[in-house]
Amino acid sequence: MTGSRLSRRSALGLIGAAGAVGVTGGFAAGATRDDAPATEDRVVPFHGPHQAGITTPVQQHLYFASFDLTSTADRDDVRSLLADWTDAAARMTRGEEVTAEGATGGGPYKPPDDTGEALGLSAHALTVTFGFGPSLFDDRFGLADRRPRELVELPSFAFDLLEDRYSGGDLCIQACAEDPQVAVHAIRNLSRIAFGRAQVRWTQLGYGRTSTTTKAQATPRNLFGFKDGTANVFGTDTADLERWVWSDGSDQPWMAGGSFLVARKIAMLIESWDRVRLEEQEAIIGRDKGEGAPLSGGREFTDPDFDVVSTQAGGPAIPMTAHMRLAHPDQNGGARLLRRGYNYVEGNNDLGQLNAGLFFLAYGRSPQQFIDIQRSLATDALNEYIRHIGSAVFAIPRGIRPGGSVGDGLFG
Amino acid sequence: MTGSRLSRRSALGLIGAAGAVGVTGGFAAGATRDDAPATEDRVVPFHGPHQAGITTPVQQHLYFASFDLTSTADRDDVRSLLADWTDAAARMTRGEEVTAEGATGGGPYKPPDDTGEALGLSAHALTVTFGFGPSLFDDRFGLADRRPRELVELPSFAFDLLEDRYSGGDLCIQACAEDPQVAVHAIRNLSRIAFGRAQVRWTQLGYGRTSTTTKAQATPRNLFGFKDGTANVFGTDTADLERWVWSDGSDQPWMAGGSFLVARKIAMLIESWDRVRLEEQEAIIGRDKGEGAPLSGGREFTDPDFDVVSTQAGGPAIPMTAHMRLAHPDQNGGARLLRRGYNYVEGNNDLGQLNAGLFFLAYGRSPQQFIDIQRSLATDALNEYIRHIGSAVFAIPRGIRPGGSVGDGLFG
Repeated sequence: MTGSRLSRRSALGLIGAAGAVGVTGGFAAGATRDDAPATEDRVVPFHGPHQAGITTPVQQHLYFASFDLTSTADRDDVRSLLADWTDAAARMTRGEEVTAEGATGGGPYKPPDDTGEALGLSAHALTVTFGFGPSLFDDRFGLADRRPRELVELPSFAFDLLEDRYSGGDLCIQACAEDPQVAVHAIRNLSRIAFGRAQVRWTQLGYGRTSTTTKAQATPRNLFGFKDGTANVFGTDTADLERWVWSDGSDQPWMAGGSFLVARKIAMLIESWDRVRLEEQEAIIGRDKGEGAPLSGGREFTDPDFDVVSTQAGGPAIPMTAHMRLAHPDQNGGARLLRRGYNYVEGNNDLGQLNAGLFFLAYGRSPQQFIDIQRSLATDALNEYIRHIGSAVFAIPRGIRPGGSVGDGLFG
Repeated sequence: MTGSRLSRRSALGLIGAAGAVGVTGGFAAGATRDDAPATEDRVVPFHGPHQAGITTPVQQHLYFASFDLTSTADRDDVRSLLADWTDAAARMTRGEEVTAEGATGGGPYKPPDDTGEALGLSAHALTVTFGFGPSLFDDRFGLADRRPRELVELPSFAFDLLEDRYSGGDLCIQACAEDPQVAVHAIRNLSRIAFGRAQVRWTQLGYGRTSTTTKAQATPRNLFGFKDGTANVFGTDTADLERWVWSDGSDQPWMAGGSFLVARKIAMLIESWDRVRLEEQEAIIGRDKGEGAPLSGGREFTDPDFDVVSTQAGGPAIPMTAHMRLAHPDQNGGARLLRRGYNYVEGNNDLGQLNAGLFFLAYGRSPQQFIDIQRSLATDALNEYIRHIGSAVFAIPRGIRPGGSVGDGLFG
């Protein structure tokens, strides 16, 4: 296995020189090949003022992992782990193999350094996004004074049925890519690098995006068959990003340009939903199913008018308990979130019903935005058909400078 | 929701007329648009002498479901279910919505007929392949005299750790597509159509192919990082297909052009494997990891030479216990299989280890081919790193004629 700085594809000679150019010249090389590199060759820059994987156009596949530090891990272990993770993530997002050469102290990930299942695959727009859970700021690591004041444990909400096995974590990694093997490979190798310092607490595979962060992508549908994320904060909404997504670092300078992530595993009662009449489904959501337009009229991106009365319904066209009404910024002091959730399907239960749902991922400049909206959803008609079974919250540090490590500023 | 014979995309007006042409003109329309339709618009013909989804170039995503007939289902229910499934599958493989209009007796799948999560997605090369388990031929359905003599329950093998929850079934459906939502949508809607007649016994999501049935696709890698399926029966190997994959119907005419499917859920002990040195991994498999060449020399597709001695190893270059040696046709009376398995990843266990592996799918003209090869693998060095946890066998009936139903000939 080569350890040189070649892409996984070119190292194996599977593509010709022309094909290799796009992924070997560094993190921005995707742009040098032509204006629109093939999806498989797309390289998303790892470095920048914000971490990749937040405003990045949402990739088709997700593999998400929550980690706990081992009981013997100390402050130096946290620091070295973050440095090793950064090094390996930067390589993998360029389509390169993991090697131990850049790892602190030689790295524990031998033999062979890279597990190999992504050999022959290029970058596939891989992004790797790191986060820190509230428990990272325990006294044990001497980080209590670096804890962002916004980073609170989420309160209990109506209808919560949370399970420990899908919740919490000291650290998280969100890997998104256009090829699932590339995302799985990233988490697997980062887990391996963590050996002895941190171990996987839970993971989540997501197989299709349910939101988009660019209007160049059509709004995808969730497993209830409705478009999801129509009213998202998009990557081009600079003012909204500053107002609702990016931390200004006024509390903790290492968070300037960072964000906060709320992850919720939401089981969907598919078979119950599938027995609901179309008109009732639409009343529960507040939008029509085909187009995704608000029930007050218009097209998908038309602003809803909550005052419109439907003579047919004998009340508001968008019912008072409609999901879209209660989640809308107008109901929540204007609060918005950048969502990039994924569908999941995990077989079936003993009754033959699907274990499936939405792995909800939302970025905001404070978890309070999610808390406010989720409280507003206490009377949501959709609650009859969903169950929140997992929950976690993470601080997402600012972007990483070339040569730096994620969480620079935590230890200074 | 429209019930007309329009594609899901064109029905919603999401693409212009030019884009819609490729998927609305019937099952072969993909070829009328241009020589190489975009992946998303590719339509695989549903009808033909063999069922689609066997020699079809392996798609990226799988959703597989095993069903049990309900305790009250009778012969007529089986017959009507197969007719309804055929109708709905034919529609979905054309990128159309499911409707009840063609269903026997109006169909039970109301409201709305289609669950909607694939609205806006075109065919994505969807194939739907049906199979019949040994228990379908119980006296209860009056089908005992139609049972193919090859359709036996698999014997126990060394290292089997089979679990009921991943094994068996009266019926199966293999849905493969280039988009996971399209495959999931197909199984979900077919499950719904079965309501009251059959229910899901187990399902399996596969997120990346581990084999290929055309040399136009590079050989993919399994989760041990090795190329898998190098020595597959390819869709162009006409003589091998006749000899090893297609039933001649000499026992049961309704099986002429059909096949037999063995499905095995094989857990892979990823963390143990990742600690094995590269040289040892290669000795266990019998091939080198980068290229996939036999350890006796050459390139990926070079025939292995089992007599070559390695002075370094002090014995055969391809060890006697190497997986590739024991699985090779030379060791098994020439027997070959057409494999189209998929990787799976399903979170992790309490120790933080990945629940992951290979969902092995192999087609042959008799399950005996698999039985012979699997017995040969009793001394396979790979057994230390894998566990067979699920098993099922199905007769795959011949292809479906336009206007006909899967299993035509079962009831005549």
